[in-house]
Amino acid sequence: MPPSPDLLTALRAPARDAPESGIVDIMNYGRRRGGVMPLWAGEGDLPTPAFITDAAAQALAAGETFYTWQRGLPELREELARYHTAHFGRSFTAEEFFVTGSGMQSIQIALAMTAGDGSEVIIPTPAWPNAAAAAGIAGARPIEVPLQFGNAGWTLDIERIASAITDRTRALVIVSPSNPTGWTATHDELTQLLALARQHGLWIIADEIYSRFWYGDGPRAPSFFDVMAPEDRILFVNTFSKNWAMTGWRMGWIVAHPSLGQVIENLIQYSTSGVAQFMQRAGVIALRQGEDFAASQIARARESRDIACDILGRTGRCRFAIPRGAFYLFFSVDGETDMPTLARRLVDEARAGLAPGSAFGGGGERFLRLCFARDPKQVEEACTRIATVLR
Amino acid sequence: MPPSPDLLTALRAPARDAPESGIVDIMNYGRRRGGVMPLWAGEGDLPTPAFITDAAAQALAAGETFYTWQRGLPELREELARYHTAHFGRSFTAEEFFVTGSGMQSIQIALAMTAGDGSEVIIPTPAWPNAAAAAGIAGARPIEVPLQFGNAGWTLDIERIASAITDRTRALVIVSPSNPTGWTATHDELTQLLALARQHGLWIIADEIYSRFWYGDGPRAPSFFDVMAPEDRILFVNTFSKNWAMTGWRMGWIVAHPSLGQVIENLIQYSTSGVAQFMQRAGVIALRQGEDFAASQIARARESRDIACDILGRTGRCRFAIPRGAFYLFFSVDGETDMPTLARRLVDEARAGLAPGSAFGGGGERFLRLCFARDPKQVEEACTRIATVLR
Repeated sequence: MPPSPDLLTALRAPARDAPESGIVDIMNYGRRRGGVMPLWAGEGDLPTPAFITDAAAQALAAGETFYTWQRGLPELREELARYHTAHFGRSFTAEEFFVTGSGMQSIQIALAMTAGDGSEVIIPTPAWPNAAAAAGIAGARPIEVPLQFGNAGWTLDIERIASAITDRTRALVIVSPSNPTGWTATHDELTQLLALARQHGLWIIADEIYSRFWYGDGPRAPSFFDVMAPEDRILFVNTFSKNWAMTGWRMGWIVAHPSLGQVIENLIQYSTSGVAQFMQRAGVIALRQGEDFAASQIARARESRDIACDILGRTGRCRFAIPRGAFYLFFSVDGETDMPTLARRLVDEARAGLAPGSAFGGGGERFLRLCFARDPKQVEEACTRIATVLR
Repeated sequence: MPPSPDLLTALRAPARDAPESGIVDIMNYGRRRGGVMPLWAGEGDLPTPAFITDAAAQALAAGETFYTWQRGLPELREELARYHTAHFGRSFTAEEFFVTGSGMQSIQIALAMTAGDGSEVIIPTPAWPNAAAAAGIAGARPIEVPLQFGNAGWTLDIERIASAITDRTRALVIVSPSNPTGWTATHDELTQLLALARQHGLWIIADEIYSRFWYGDGPRAPSFFDVMAPEDRILFVNTFSKNWAMTGWRMGWIVAHPSLGQVIENLIQYSTSGVAQFMQRAGVIALRQGEDFAASQIARARESRDIACDILGRTGRCRFAIPRGAFYLFFSVDGETDMPTLARRLVDEARAGLAPGSAFGGGGERFLRLCFARDPKQVEEACTRIATVLR
């Protein structure tokens, strides 16, 4: 019997139907042009600092190229506990931490632990699209609940979340501070979301990777760590990417109750079987010696945020909420409705790469996302060029 | 409402019920003792050679720490095509190759493409257990079909595979040469398996990572590449781990029809979002300059295989088929039935770490797996100590 003429039709539908990333799409468009300021991805302009890369190079030279602990190097888990103890208001232990091959993999594992097989996962949008796509591939249904955009900026209506809960709902994915909107849950909102989860027996997948990129009161954004009890059903997903300019490394972590340790170890074993030891050595150094670098990254983002808001605000055409957290400006442009086309026009005419808001789910269609985690001079230059095109 | 007292009961069942690795279990036992010759994992004694690690260190120093191509660096995909063209009897193009975060991730992605949602995947056993476990986590059912062990060594009864096919079957996972048995499909058996897959519209997930570790006629083991047509439903999963002593790196690849490229890119995007560029540079060098090293690894394995077979054979108690491929000796011991206990005894008394065959599914319960991908002197010493305990 001859083979099928169409391999795609023979694939499992949830894999075949996974959406293409709308961010990658514009990046591929822009890469072909060259000379474009890349503000489309969630990535800064600085390479990983040398004190971190040196740690990996030294471990490579020392032959640390063998299989290692599935949950992560004990030293790295200790450093993660120390880092969290310093920043999140309670004492943490190494047993709560699990090293993964990216924040994205942390999300994939958290989803595998909670949802699949036709169950539902609620995701406030606009949101970084990968969690919804990963849920779909896992056989779950992502249920979008759009935030509102108005004079008060982006707001979350907890009642709309409550209304979306069905007997098939298993988890809420809460990204706070949010990529792309900068919306950040208040202490009260976190408490209400947790109460809702407790009431319905739901898991919360807490993506707080931008927690330190925070422009409100206090040293970091409000966190579920501030409101939860130890036995609450919360899985925290995190990454080395943003604080320490390690986007390309693909290294992240999960914080979870130690009773879940063997399950998480198994899910690591049966997906990527751990993270390179020589990379983990760099993670140890990032946590141990990287505080000044992280602080300078955050200060630069704050300065660039103000510049971007100022220049685009003065065009008179751009509508946005000044982001309280994360490092994106998510803005609409009066009179513009086809944002993928506008994004291409800005690549061509302003040599600025922005991501169309349609890549971020319901409620984002009329926006563009600009990443300002860069040298303020670069952000000023790019925003000036964008403003010129938009005027 | 108070949170659940038991977080484990709130987990999705296929994740909660994933089996612990029986290999990791004995490793954890042995690590606590120290001084144990580690023959339990599929890993040699040599660290990654310097010409490969240097390439990664140089890329790190050059700042190659940003997000990169989801399908893999174009240069690496070109080198993979060149490598396959050199070894697998036809001309390959870069568009057929996809870089992943380990051979394990290649399997996870291949499973996501083919099975889940209660469908079935057929796996001849004994087999490396991770594919079956990953299928279970994905919501599919792994169906074991044991090989037979007798005077002819390990043999596959194609009729038993055919009998296991139901209307829920989606894929066959064929590991050839096999870890742990060394069983290797003949050209005829590959043809028959492919005919079966064609007849029932099944995918084949072809794990041929030990293809070069081959002790029969010709330079490598028979491969599905030898018998397939371009449009056949075959996904090849592979890894840098074995040929180039890169087990700890977590880098692998998939070979698939280019028409599946966007789906595979999406599955990479929504699981780990690519592989570190600085690691991929090392992969380029491994493929480009690593042939002598790979050949020396293979020659050492062959020599160590002969030593292990000789010493354990002369105990008069060990039964095995001399492996035709891969780098494991899978043996039973007359009069011994509790192999996990025997494995612990060999750790304690012979200071040799072997994996119990029960870790490899149906048909392996009365065996131990010994990895001989090491310095022949080490294998001789460990086998001599094992033989002393067994006599």
